[in-house]
Amino acid sequence: MDQTFTVTGMTCGHCEAAIKRALAQVDPAAQVQIDRSQQRVQVQGSQQPREALAAAIREEGYEVAA
Amino acid sequence: MDQTFTVTGMTCGHCEAAIKRALAQVDPAAQVQIDRSQQRVQVQGSQQPREALAAAIREEGYEVAA
Repeated sequence: MDQTFTVTGMTCGHCEAAIKRALAQVDPAAQVQIDRSQQRVQVQGSQQPREALAAAIREEGYEVAA
Repeated sequence: MDQTFTVTGMTCGHCEAAIKRALAQVDPAAQVQIDRSQQRVQVQGSQQPREALAAAIREEGYEVAA
């Protein structure tokens, strides 16, 4: 199952790393790809509900579009 | 001894943390203050040569003005 999020506030590679780390804590099996220039975070292979993944991103200090 | 560097490329708090971590490895006794909006990194209390501190910042991927 692919879940794609529009995330604003990612400014650098550290931001990407922080989001990947946070998502890995929610679901270690998830594969995460981030395209910062497109403000896009794509999560593949996760059974976690969308809101749980979005919450992990928000807790790192980033905005997730509804 | 205060040493001040003009550093470009710091975009977020993670960048500040990465630079502080790198400088702490060069000199654990140094006190580092960063004003990102001013592109300024200030190192206090370090006996390390300026070039060693600048090199640590550059190794993290940031530009240090001459």
